[in-house]
Amino acid sequence: MPQSPFIWQSRIRFGDTDASGRVFYISLLRHFEAAEHELLRVLGCPYNLFQQPKVDFPRVHVECDYISPLVFDDLIDTAVTVERLGGSSFTLGFAITTAGRLAARGKLTVVAMDPQTHKSTPLPSKLRATLNAYAA
Amino acid sequence: MPQSPFIWQSRIRFGDTDASGRVFYISLLRHFEAAEHELLRVLGCPYNLFQQPKVDFPRVHVECDYISPLVFDDLIDTAVTVERLGGSSFTLGFAITTAGRLAARGKLTVVAMDPQTHKSTPLPSKLRATLNAYAA
Amino acid sequence: MPQSPFIWQSRIRFGDTDASGRVFYISLLRHFEAAEHELLRVLGCPYNLFQQPKVDFPRVHVECDYISPLVFDDLIDTAVTVERLGGSSFTLGFAITTAGRLAARGKLTVVAMDPQTHKSTPLPSKLRATLNAYAA
Amino acid sequence: MPQSPFIWQSRIRFGDTDASGRVFYISLLRHFEAAEHELLRVLGCPYNLFQQPKVDFPRVHVECDYISPLVFDDLIDTAVTVERLGGSSFTLGFAITTAGRLAARGKLTVVAMDPQTHKSTPLPSKLRATLNAYAA
Repeated sequence: MPQSPFIWQSRIRFGDTDASGRVFYISLLRHFEAAEHELLRVLGCPYNLFQQPKVDFPRVHVECDYISPLVFDDLIDTAVTVERLGGSSFTLGFAITTAGRLAARGKLTVVAMDPQTHKSTPLPSKLRATLNAYAA
Repeated sequence: MPQSPFIWQSRIRFGDTDASGRVFYISLLRHFEAAEHELLRVLGCPYNLFQQPKVDFPRVHVECDYISPLVFDDLIDTAVTVERLGGSSFTLGFAITTAGRLAARGKLTVVAMDPQTHKSTPLPSKLRATLNAYAA
Repeated sequence: MPQSPFIWQSRIRFGDTDASGRVFYISLLRHFEAAEHELLRVLGCPYNLFQQPKVDFPRVHVECDYISPLVFDDLIDTAVTVERLGGSSFTLGFAITTAGRLAARGKLTVVAMDPQTHKSTPLPSKLRATLNAYAA
Repeated sequence: MPQSPFIWQSRIRFGDTDASGRVFYISLLRHFEAAEHELLRVLGCPYNLFQQPKVDFPRVHVECDYISPLVFDDLIDTAVTVERLGGSSFTLGFAITTAGRLAARGKLTVVAMDPQTHKSTPLPSKLRATLNAYAA
C-alpha cells in the first residue's frame, strides 16, 4: 500500500486551456478524476471490482479552490488524501502542485449506491478497510 | 417535417476555446452532436425511440474541415444534411456558419448496431423512412 | 433587467453522460458556465465589455452538490442568483431543475484581475452596479 | 530521435465514456491530442518553441474511424506517424490499439500560420527537418 498521499502526475493539455491563456477551471477537475481512479487502482480497489452485488459510486459533492494559475504543458502533481470516511460515503481531498507551487485544492464526495433501489448502501467492506488503512 | 437543411443555433462557450484564443478544434464537434440530436428530435425520430428491439447507434467515422476561425461567444448556425443513407448506416453532413461566413464543415457516419450481437443491423424502418423524406 | 433568478434552459447531451448512464458530474458544470454568460449578456454586462483597462475574470472557487440524477436528453433549467457581491469578487449561485425536480446546486466565485499585475482589482463599477441591481 | 511510430500510452477515463457504456467518440480525439504533443516533445520540437517569429499551428482537418469499442479503464497505445509533410502544413496519422487490437485510426492536418496576417506561412525549418527525419 502506498503511503498517503498518493501522487498522480499529469499534464495540462492544450484542450484544457481557454482563451484566457490559462487552464479552463472545469478542465482541471478531470485531473482530479484521473488521480482518484489511479489511487484506487494502486490500492487494489478500483470501483469496478464491486459487481456482485453491483454498487454504483455517484458523486454528491465536488469543490475546487483555484490558488495560482496553470498553463498549457504544465506538469502537475495531484496528491490525493482521504478527508472523511463514513458508513456509505467518503470524501477525497486533492492538492495540485506544479514545480512545488500549490495551484489548486479540492474535495470530492462519493456515495455507494444500490443501482436497483437508487438508495445509498454501506461502503463495500473491502473498500472501506482499504481507504481506512490508506488514511492511517 | 422541416425542409433540409435543418439549422441548429448554438454559442461558442468560453470552455470551447483554447489558449490560441480561438475555438478548440475538438470542442466544435460537440456542436455537431447537438445539431444531430436536435434534427432527429424535430423529425420525431430520436435515437432512444428504438428500444424494442433495442438498437444502438455507434459512430464509425467523423471528420471536420476547419475553414475560418471561431472565437468565444460567436453565435453559430449548424446546418445538417443527409449525405448518404445506406441499409444499416447513414452519413450526416454539417456546415457551421457564423454571421453568414462558413467556419467549418464535417461528416458523421452512424451505424445501427444490435447491442446483443455487437453486429450491424438494418436501420429501423421508421428512421430510414424519416431520413429519406428529410433528404428528399 | 430580468428579475432574479434568471433561468437558462439547456439540454443534457449524450456527450455529457458517462457509462453510469447518468450525467458525468464534471460535465454539469458546463451548464453553469452557459447560464453565467447568458445572465451577463441579458444584463448587458458580458465580461468582454471590460477591455480598457482590460480586466480578466478568473475563477477562484467552484462547488456543486448533486441532488438527484440527470440523464441524456433531460431539459434543464439553471437558475442563477448573486450569492455575494464583494469589492473585487462575487459569487454566483446555481440551481438546476428538470421538470420541477431539483437536480443540482452550485456556487462559483469570480475575481476581477488586472492582467498586467496578476493581482485582484476592484470590480468594474458597471459590473458591480449591475449585479447589485439584479440581486436586489 | 525515436523510431517511427512513437507510441503514447493513456487510459480511457470514466469521463471519456458515455451512456452507451463505451467511449464517447469525440473524447477519443483528446487522446490523439496528447499523443501529438508528446511526440513533438520527444522530438525536441514542441509547438511553443516557435515564438520569434511567433507561429501558430491551427488545425484544418481532423478525422477518425472507429473500428472496435473502447470502454472505461482501457489502457490504449496511440501510435503517431507523419502521413504527409508539405511546405506549410503536415498531416499526422494516429492508430489506437488496446491489448494489440486496433480500436481507431485517425488523421490530423496542422498548418503553420502567421498570427499577424492570419495567413499560412512556411513550416519552421527546424520543425520541418525534425518531422522529415522522424518520418524517414
